[in-house]
Amino acid sequence: MKENFLLKTDGARVLYESVKTLPIVDFHNHISVDDIAKDRRCGDLYELWLAPDPYKHRLMRICGVDEKYITGDAAPYEKFEKYCEIFPYVAGNPVYDWSRMELSRVFGIEKIPSRENARYIFDSANEKLASPEFSNNGILSGFGVEYQSPVATLLEDISGFNGKTVAPSLRADDLLAPTDEFKAELTEKTGIVITDKESYMAAVCVMLDKFNEKGCRFADHSLDAKFFADDRNGARREMLVNLGNEYAKRGWTLLLHMNAKRRTSPRLLSLAGPAGGFAAVGESFDIAAIADLLGAMEERGGLPDTVLFPLNMSDQAPLAVMQGSYSQDGVPSKVQLGPSWWWCDHTLGIRNTLECIASFGAVSQFIGMTTDSRSILSFVRHDYFRRILCSWLDEKNTSAEWELPAEYLAEIAAKISYGNAKLKIEK
Amino acid sequence: MKENFLLKTDGARVLYESVKTLPIVDFHNHISVDDIAKDRRCGDLYELWLAPDPYKHRLMRICGVDEKYITGDAAPYEKFEKYCEIFPYVAGNPVYDWSRMELSRVFGIEKIPSRENARYIFDSANEKLASPEFSNNGILSGFGVEYQSPVATLLEDISGFNGKTVAPSLRADDLLAPTDEFKAELTEKTGIVITDKESYMAAVCVMLDKFNEKGCRFADHSLDAKFFADDRNGARREMLVNLGNEYAKRGWTLLLHMNAKRRTSPRLLSLAGPAGGFAAVGESFDIAAIADLLGAMEERGGLPDTVLFPLNMSDQAPLAVMQGSYSQDGVPSKVQLGPSWWWCDHTLGIRNTLECIASFGAVSQFIGMTTDSRSILSFVRHDYFRRILCSWLDEKNTSAEWELPAEYLAEIAAKISYGNAKLKIEK
Amino acid sequence: MKENFLLKTDGARVLYESVKTLPIVDFHNHISVDDIAKDRRCGDLYELWLAPDPYKHRLMRICGVDEKYITGDAAPYEKFEKYCEIFPYVAGNPVYDWSRMELSRVFGIEKIPSRENARYIFDSANEKLASPEFSNNGILSGFGVEYQSPVATLLEDISGFNGKTVAPSLRADDLLAPTDEFKAELTEKTGIVITDKESYMAAVCVMLDKFNEKGCRFADHSLDAKFFADDRNGARREMLVNLGNEYAKRGWTLLLHMNAKRRTSPRLLSLAGPAGGFAAVGESFDIAAIADLLGAMEERGGLPDTVLFPLNMSDQAPLAVMQGSYSQDGVPSKVQLGPSWWWCDHTLGIRNTLECIASFGAVSQFIGMTTDSRSILSFVRHDYFRRILCSWLDEKNTSAEWELPAEYLAEIAAKISYGNAKLKIEK
Repeated sequence: MKENFLLKTDGARVLYESVKTLPIVDFHNHISVDDIAKDRRCGDLYELWLAPDPYKHRLMRICGVDEKYITGDAAPYEKFEKYCEIFPYVAGNPVYDWSRMELSRVFGIEKIPSRENARYIFDSANEKLASPEFSNNGILSGFGVEYQSPVATLLEDISGFNGKTVAPSLRADDLLAPTDEFKAELTEKTGIVITDKESYMAAVCVMLDKFNEKGCRFADHSLDAKFFADDRNGARREMLVNLGNEYAKRGWTLLLHMNAKRRTSPRLLSLAGPAGGFAAVGESFDIAAIADLLGAMEERGGLPDTVLFPLNMSDQAPLAVMQGSYSQDGVPSKVQLGPSWWWCDHTLGIRNTLECIASFGAVSQFIGMTTDSRSILSFVRHDYFRRILCSWLDEKNTSAEWELPAEYLAEIAAKISYGNAKLKIEK
Repeated sequence: MKENFLLKTDGARVLYESVKTLPIVDFHNHISVDDIAKDRRCGDLYELWLAPDPYKHRLMRICGVDEKYITGDAAPYEKFEKYCEIFPYVAGNPVYDWSRMELSRVFGIEKIPSRENARYIFDSANEKLASPEFSNNGILSGFGVEYQSPVATLLEDISGFNGKTVAPSLRADDLLAPTDEFKAELTEKTGIVITDKESYMAAVCVMLDKFNEKGCRFADHSLDAKFFADDRNGARREMLVNLGNEYAKRGWTLLLHMNAKRRTSPRLLSLAGPAGGFAAVGESFDIAAIADLLGAMEERGGLPDTVLFPLNMSDQAPLAVMQGSYSQDGVPSKVQLGPSWWWCDHTLGIRNTLECIASFGAVSQFIGMTTDSRSILSFVRHDYFRRILCSWLDEKNTSAEWELPAEYLAEIAAKISYGNAKLKIEK
Repeated sequence: MKENFLLKTDGARVLYESVKTLPIVDFHNHISVDDIAKDRRCGDLYELWLAPDPYKHRLMRICGVDEKYITGDAAPYEKFEKYCEIFPYVAGNPVYDWSRMELSRVFGIEKIPSRENARYIFDSANEKLASPEFSNNGILSGFGVEYQSPVATLLEDISGFNGKTVAPSLRADDLLAPTDEFKAELTEKTGIVITDKESYMAAVCVMLDKFNEKGCRFADHSLDAKFFADDRNGARREMLVNLGNEYAKRGWTLLLHMNAKRRTSPRLLSLAGPAGGFAAVGESFDIAAIADLLGAMEERGGLPDTVLFPLNMSDQAPLAVMQGSYSQDGVPSKVQLGPSWWWCDHTLGIRNTLECIASFGAVSQFIGMTTDSRSILSFVRHDYFRRILCSWLDEKNTSAEWELPAEYLAEIAAKISYGNAKLKIEK
């Protein structure tokens, strides 16, 4: 790929030079702590690049590729080759850019995957993968990740997190409507007998403190499509308010992931499992209900810093407005729109996020990028984000005539690329 | 108009040259089969261009023109002149571009309609209309339409369709909640006495097979604003699932037209009738309910290939995501966002459609353009679409740095302009 | 600021020259009639520029500034300095552009507020403020405001309005569900005893006529988030239909402000009051219900000219379509999308408004800009709007190839900048 990929102007290039080597804070992802502990190695490019990536499988299915070549019994190279064959036909999808960046950044491979280039790419990458520095942690170290927080559920073993460069982020969905099994295990772990809401919260707090000791700074909740429309969710909402108060006490930041429609094709569910990459997006979310939820947290014990992740792009604008609807002395952007999430993590979504936060609030306070990914290769997306960000900032400073001095613009680029997220982990 | 209308770069022009003469597949329209059979002739430009076009009437009303000059008793030239008078004031509306393209492409008239140019345009066009080659079919043959499928309802006489270049597309709305009259007529046509759901479906299937014999490959349903919010629609939804299964069996493609708000001004309803061009657009549609509908079809007997037509532009993004939520081995884009529909069929809508399908799926699989129109002049819109498409593709390949070799880009342009729609009719 | 701020092309500059000195019609604002009557003077820039502006307070809170420096007991200059300190970090927000335009246009100050420039700006402006021509009305006269209509409630004293350059605009929210207190006061003012709906409407009509005599031409209603979803609003909706009929009789224009979510942070409500600048935006509004409301007005006694103000940008497109859904002989754009409202009044919102009205209707009929502001400095926003408008029109005429002759383009720019709003006040 071109060195100046996505950087069209001199201004954008200068700005990018000033942020490209800043460390990465990846505050929400699904990286395997076990792979880090064991410094896992992959035998070939298929195993590293294609097998574990539901985004790539999804594109193969869109192109009508037989399941045999996706999750079926075809040989690894056959599967890899099929992905290369469809590759030129998915240009425009962010996975096209990410795939190219992964090959370029990690393996120095600049050819565009295609039927013609498949064999060359496979062999070149495999050759490198055989050398010692291409272990899981070898690849990881090339990205300059200062801090990352893979998700862990409340009852999960978090002893593998080192609490410094790798801290847990609490995935808290199962706390809202705990099953008997969940409560029993919670009792076992904490010694607290759960008989009512108070004892349940007491036990939860013991675990929250353990997460806190392991450096946890983030808790996330999924508010799927129609969460607030479903009357059965009254008690869940109540619990979320209580948990929000607890996160606030500990200085954690609440991540709200909104509007996934996870149940779509029964066939794909049975074929690829619930994280198989076929989720859809619900209609515009109930924004007013989000405002009420945050208001209730504030009123009843404390509002945590909150980052909002809509999956329907129409909701980026109204949620960006929330930056001005809640505040706290000394806290920049108490509540804010987060990075473009999941299917929205592409140039279109990122630019719209930047436009919305700028237009409705203060873009300099934007918490910036997180990968939300299972793959260590996904850290290239921080580079992707920084390129788009610097192009956008330079464009605004010139065409929209902000006329900011260069040092202010560079400071803003650095805050969004790194500093604002860093603030949340140091809280 | 300029030869390079909307084609700003050399790359766009080269790409456009490669698709501009490809045949047209217009898979959903309202062209009169009777006009084709009789090779109808129009006496003057008013009769061909203005009288039957509710889009143009709508713009006249927006500009405050007296109804006398729209559907009233003014003379044809007076009406034509009024349209020319308001014409410069509707620049920006797609009908402005279409009107100019219609005059340019069919009559070689390059002047912009206006008070000053009205008489010249009327006389020039009328002169041509008097010559033999300007009959309905003469004009039609100039557009290179390989296949079109005007809509027909289930009980309509479809003997006029030739089944090759002109095949029926089933407009199936009256099947969801059949009236007694509908059932009686269905019995008459099929000989099947309808006593329950099974016998009703059996009779419907007889008719579907007759449509199939006439080359029908598409069935469309309107899911108007609040379709899923209206509790009375439970049985209609059930029937739609059953029909979806039947379409799937026959290899038909299901077209879902969503979110029209047809009841607006009582005055305009009485004045212009239900297709008078005054429909509005409902709030963001219930996307999650669409996902559930498609999931039910898949689970209960088979999901047909499906094309989604939202009328609210906010829904283009979430519906584009569906391309990855359903799939079938060997079928590219089992479910996909369709061309910008009705009021959204303008540069803004088309470019947003392209951006969304690319960003959330694979734009190379996009089924492309259909006119959905009553007027044979509307085939100029395929040219309009191809110009916008080629500009967009060239822009992406350079600015967004897809860096695809020219032959891939041309192949993608050809698939979207023609090939992908062709695949559906050959299914 | 540059003389050609936001005007990139020669075409844009020529067009702007033709509209920049047109008078201002500001048909909906919150300017103090009392300040005009008393020709109020401000002691320093803080008092004029910062103290009364909740938009600026909101940005300070977003940046985490201590409340002491916003509405607290810090000294005026300390507060001013804090605003200057955060100022470079809010670039991208419209208040950044407005603030610079206010300083440039009124005080000739071209420096960008910042920690370094704070003292210079404060002193320079204060020096000017001390001179006689910088009174309230002195500043006002520099803007060329031909007509403005600050809001007044039905029972407010409107004797201060001169009825020519300053006429009241009715803020009619308290009419929908009148309290006993409201009815008692209404009886006192009109002499009509209110016993039922008929006598209530009779008394209301007496007051409407008084407003009419004072030159009132506009009535506005707020339809906040979930207005139509709240079953208790059935009677309010009925009353709105009746009032709409009365506005129609008087030739008034109805302004519908939709989708505010005013209740957010309890803390900010107690701190800054209900107009403190922390309102949020609800999810996509119930557009179909708006269509039904307008249909009911038309059917039951007359539809007033109507301007729709959505706060959720997703609703700009579907509401722009309404321009074609209602009409009246001789009335251009009976119902239309209004200027980008409140949080949406920025380049992003304005350009989207223009794109939507053009694409779905006729942009030449667009009523243009109104400030909706409490500050006389806000009239710079008409200049802001005209610059964005002229850039957009020139871009369309060239890139989208409208190819309109210059005189048509200038006429359209003038209609949107001034003429279309003027038509409504002359109605």
